[in-house]
Amino acid sequence: MTRILVSEVGPRDGLQSIDRRMPTEAKMRWIAAEAAAGVREIEVGSFVPPSLMPQLADTPELVAFARTIPGLNVVALVPNIKGAARAVEAGVHAMSIPFSMSETHSIRNVRKDHAAMLAEIRGAAALSHDAGIHFAVGLSTAFGCTIEGAVPEHRVVGLAEAAVAAGADELSLSDTTGYADPAQVRRLVRSVRGAVGDGILTTLHLHNTRGLGLANALAGLEEGITTLDASLGGLGGCPFAPGASGNIVTEDLVLMLNSMGLETGIDLDKLIEVRAILAEALPGEPLYGFTPDAGPMLDYPNRLA
Amino acid sequence: MTRILVSEVGPRDGLQSIDRRMPTEAKMRWIAAEAAAGVREIEVGSFVPPSLMPQLADTPELVAFARTIPGLNVVALVPNIKGAARAVEAGVHAMSIPFSMSETHSIRNVRKDHAAMLAEIRGAAALSHDAGIHFAVGLSTAFGCTIEGAVPEHRVVGLAEAAVAAGADELSLSDTTGYADPAQVRRLVRSVRGAVGDGILTTLHLHNTRGLGLANALAGLEEGITTLDASLGGLGGCPFAPGASGNIVTEDLVLMLNSMGLETGIDLDKLIEVRAILAEALPGEPLYGFTPDAGPMLDYPNRLA
Repeated sequence: MTRILVSEVGPRDGLQSIDRRMPTEAKMRWIAAEAAAGVREIEVGSFVPPSLMPQLADTPELVAFARTIPGLNVVALVPNIKGAARAVEAGVHAMSIPFSMSETHSIRNVRKDHAAMLAEIRGAAALSHDAGIHFAVGLSTAFGCTIEGAVPEHRVVGLAEAAVAAGADELSLSDTTGYADPAQVRRLVRSVRGAVGDGILTTLHLHNTRGLGLANALAGLEEGITTLDASLGGLGGCPFAPGASGNIVTEDLVLMLNSMGLETGIDLDKLIEVRAILAEALPGEPLYGFTPDAGPMLDYPNRLA
Repeated sequence: MTRILVSEVGPRDGLQSIDRRMPTEAKMRWIAAEAAAGVREIEVGSFVPPSLMPQLADTPELVAFARTIPGLNVVALVPNIKGAARAVEAGVHAMSIPFSMSETHSIRNVRKDHAAMLAEIRGAAALSHDAGIHFAVGLSTAFGCTIEGAVPEHRVVGLAEAAVAAGADELSLSDTTGYADPAQVRRLVRSVRGAVGDGILTTLHLHNTRGLGLANALAGLEEGITTLDASLGGLGGCPFAPGASGNIVTEDLVLMLNSMGLETGIDLDKLIEVRAILAEALPGEPLYGFTPDAGPMLDYPNRLA
């Protein structure tokens, strides 16, 4: 029986994609309810400067709150060394720094080339390790970039090795742009694992821009990926595709994994109930996913591990 | 390089799911435009009694029209021997008869138990073969039934063998209810192929009720499936899941296959343009799919086989 970690990133990636601010109290109810449904890891926010993303300014309070929930792994995104210092201070269990494989995207997005980003990664890793905190690097735009187009596989492999040398305990391949196809997922997971070892590349972060999200997740699972990021209700959507969720939808992912007999520890019914918190706190915000409407299959209970 | 046949079933399965009637002239433009985009097989309609499905009453005219398109494989559904006789008369290249693996579903849906259905299959196969027409059996509710729940795998295998003995040249596993998960697809394809040989089970017919459609398609491809049914714009939707397409969406499927370097022969841009015919002929009817909004990846042309 394979145990798969579904890592909820909605409070960070979902909320960062919408301008509206979700009340801190509602975020806390969201986090608590997902944990009660069996979700074991939540990225609760981001230590970007609050002036840039006021909707995530309450991240320190959310970290403090989430840490009171037994058994929950509390993660936050950090953009750089300064953010890492704030994350250490807040008391995260783990932090994750995005490292864009497309240098053009990196420069446009955070005004840092690859060398400058590797310096931030080294510094953030050092702070993290000094505090005994797990340190992950998300290899963003790993499957392609909306500016550069294709990102050569050998470049991703080289930068993955550099990230590990700079201190990454864990790597994630991030399909920031919804460019991945299943064959590419298999190839890239194999190549990167071949270079850095099987234990470090554990995670896929997928978007559903073109509807291939769950097929890409399946390809990753078949290559030995054990952690999948997802967002409840696909919160945030995709600005380029009106009907498309942002991240893959937690509910549909959990249905797929549980139905396949993989062990997620997540109760699907309880998970679906958490949507009501989003619907109430962000009225009118589109929520995605098919399973919440269709419900599980009649024989779903017999499919579970 | 693997060649995959994308079989467009929208004019039958899509239109059968909506009450409105699409003008015959618009259906002809749809069929012609998809063929011009490179689609090599289209299920143009169904030889059910016109009184039961008036929206498909023009199937004979559509068969005659579609047969004038060079290189297009013209398929129609037949429910029984009577329908098969009409299909022969109309001049189809291939016919497909649904055979529900859930006997309860079969009795409720067509008032025939398995023995009675096998008699229809034998008779229809004989008519078909006498006319030199390819004869396929669609094993519907193969992944579960909304009435019975789970359909035991050994029952599907046994009925698949019986269908072949009754004259099936080809089998399709049909996820009529959107119940399939990727692990189940792999298991069932293997079991049925183990019983009837690799060459006969070529096709998956998938619905996207719970969002797992493309992941299930991927699992099938990895087990050697070479034909995938799909519907343009996911036409017809799913009555139980408001946001869910009916069949898997042809546009998203073709993006996935082409991007993986599998050969479909279908031009994605031209395929997406065909949606305009549906939008015009069926104003207000929801069309599904993510690729039409997001467009292909910037490096999509370089991914093609």
